[in-house]
Amino acid sequence: MKEKKIQRREFIRKGSFAAGAATSASLLAACGHTSQKKVELPAYMSKKFEWKCVTVWPPNFPVVGESINQLAKELETMSSGRLKIKVYGAGELVPAFEAFDAVTLGAVQMGHGVAYYWAGKIPSAVFFAAVPFGMNAQQMNAWLYYGGGWDLWRELYAKFGLEPFPCGNTGVQMGGWFNKEINSVEDLKGLKMRIPGLGGKVISKAGGSSITVAGGEIYTNLERGVIDATEWIGPYHDYLMGFHRVAKYYYYPGWHEPGPTLELFCNKKAYEELPDDLQEMVRMASYKYNMLMLSEFESKNNEYLNKIVNESEVQIKRFPEEVIHNLKSIAKEVVEEVANADPFAQKVYESYSKFKKDITAWSEISEQTVTQYL
Amino acid sequence: MKEKKIQRREFIRKGSFAAGAATSASLLAACGHTSQKKVELPAYMSKKFEWKCVTVWPPNFPVVGESINQLAKELETMSSGRLKIKVYGAGELVPAFEAFDAVTLGAVQMGHGVAYYWAGKIPSAVFFAAVPFGMNAQQMNAWLYYGGGWDLWRELYAKFGLEPFPCGNTGVQMGGWFNKEINSVEDLKGLKMRIPGLGGKVISKAGGSSITVAGGEIYTNLERGVIDATEWIGPYHDYLMGFHRVAKYYYYPGWHEPGPTLELFCNKKAYEELPDDLQEMVRMASYKYNMLMLSEFESKNNEYLNKIVNESEVQIKRFPEEVIHNLKSIAKEVVEEVANADPFAQKVYESYSKFKKDITAWSEISEQTVTQYL
Repeated sequence: MKEKKIQRREFIRKGSFAAGAATSASLLAACGHTSQKKVELPAYMSKKFEWKCVTVWPPNFPVVGESINQLAKELETMSSGRLKIKVYGAGELVPAFEAFDAVTLGAVQMGHGVAYYWAGKIPSAVFFAAVPFGMNAQQMNAWLYYGGGWDLWRELYAKFGLEPFPCGNTGVQMGGWFNKEINSVEDLKGLKMRIPGLGGKVISKAGGSSITVAGGEIYTNLERGVIDATEWIGPYHDYLMGFHRVAKYYYYPGWHEPGPTLELFCNKKAYEELPDDLQEMVRMASYKYNMLMLSEFESKNNEYLNKIVNESEVQIKRFPEEVIHNLKSIAKEVVEEVANADPFAQKVYESYSKFKKDITAWSEISEQTVTQYL
Repeated sequence: MKEKKIQRREFIRKGSFAAGAATSASLLAACGHTSQKKVELPAYMSKKFEWKCVTVWPPNFPVVGESINQLAKELETMSSGRLKIKVYGAGELVPAFEAFDAVTLGAVQMGHGVAYYWAGKIPSAVFFAAVPFGMNAQQMNAWLYYGGGWDLWRELYAKFGLEPFPCGNTGVQMGGWFNKEINSVEDLKGLKMRIPGLGGKVISKAGGSSITVAGGEIYTNLERGVIDATEWIGPYHDYLMGFHRVAKYYYYPGWHEPGPTLELFCNKKAYEELPDDLQEMVRMASYKYNMLMLSEFESKNNEYLNKIVNESEVQIKRFPEEVIHNLKSIAKEVVEEVANADPFAQKVYESYSKFKKDITAWSEISEQTVTQYL
């Protein structure tokens, strides 16, 4: 019998240490069928929780906002309606930059955003999102889940009455849209670029200016030359903004955001009031979307990069080596300034840097080598 | 007020399109507190399911077996004991290579393994795990979740009465342990290597021999020169096997397995008998561990690579360019043979190849470029 032979041969392949050899027939006799006993449900199951989740994204923002809507639906399904969450886009209940406070104060129970939004009040928060030339998505997850990153994050947010969860990642972003060609570090001098956060600080230190522009006004400012350049996210979201119609060059890589982790955060008291089963569901859902958003970004980005190339005259360009190395050395200073902001930031920086050094060494002989040949 | 100023400034940064501006005070007044209504529980909640999960791994196998134990615990917590799963290592109930049939027959309700184990009876299954020079973990997830991969997998497994879920990934593996130096394609001739599956076929076509050795005997065979080389997984698991004590060289990259997806599979009928909430929990848990196992592998591999280097004389070596390019062109033939096995395999191959081509183009300007500078 061919099938039997295959099984015997394959049985001794990788992973098959065991020597037991019950046949399928004896197995069937031994195992019986699914047991369906009556179960006594615990009293806590009669309580229903109605939560609100504020986000820092426009309502139904592609990938990210859509995912949180979906997460809420799935929590309702898993809990048989015992945990019902209404999701709000930025400005529908509170402005984006009040989401953190709204959850801290307990006005709402949950929020979704990205930790570097809170850098103004908590410098170390950036390490739980992204720093220029920092870890990519896969490395961030390893640090957060197995390198002590999430523990530090929980310790930090506990001071604000919050419970944080890694929940989403954009993957590597693009370097941005430019109407000025960048051929050397000299070309960064005087560059007016819309680039917030630490990336903006790096550009400023390199001689450019980091200009603040509201999302809805970037297109017009770029078109009219008020700014020379802007970063946004990656090809999918950037295409929707239409930047390819008003910019000459689309630069890569996104050195300033190599894989920002997004965050779900709960009011700690509200979270702790949930029974164990609902807490587990919230945690579980955060894991799912931490990965799934990245998968969606990854799957859409090349498709939209092609649309950009096909529907416009824009040139896809790589930053020159010299420019990247210059930005990298400035980024080191900028990140170290964050680390020096307070003792906790120093502690997070040390954990982050140590882990990054180690995992980068591994990445060099694994991901970086193999992907050259795929 | 400094904080207010920061909020205003940051409010108009990325993601903040909305113009609404409720203050925290007005917000608190408007929102009230957590609602805790009594809830009527649906009748299906009084049913209890007791399942068995067989795996292709030794009991409590590091990362992988441990994760499935944990997954079972969390499903029990989330379901308040309504879904209880007992996990078995390979050989505890059925041998590794009978796991698929045991779940198909309904003798047990769930299994955990890796789809290329079933290549003997289902050629196309390899595409849902790993093929030589195939996609890495991040790319596989994008294909499975957003590129139609999982749909094809479900279509295939439905023929066997199974419902599959991506659930785990080892990340890039190592190329293997060698006692013969590989300096050119000539050195592959006559090489006796323990390397199963498609990787083994490639080595055979390159002039070597793919030798079948049970897991527990690899160490001794390598020590005694019965084989010249073996691949296993990556530094963490390889260290536990002790190969660094009996091999001279540890080669990278793991061209034969650039990121194998592991699988959870349920008996379709048993799965469909679960009420919606429990089905959602099983799905949700599969997403979590699909990512989390990869994170654990990533976090441990560099640590154990260092232990290998520090505790032995083994040399870490990269396969020469010429050798990799040779293996790659042979791998193309081998994978195309799989695609030609049957019309369904052809369909899967087309979907896989198209997606791989696209996502590799994106990866070149995102992950591959940025990681050079991290």
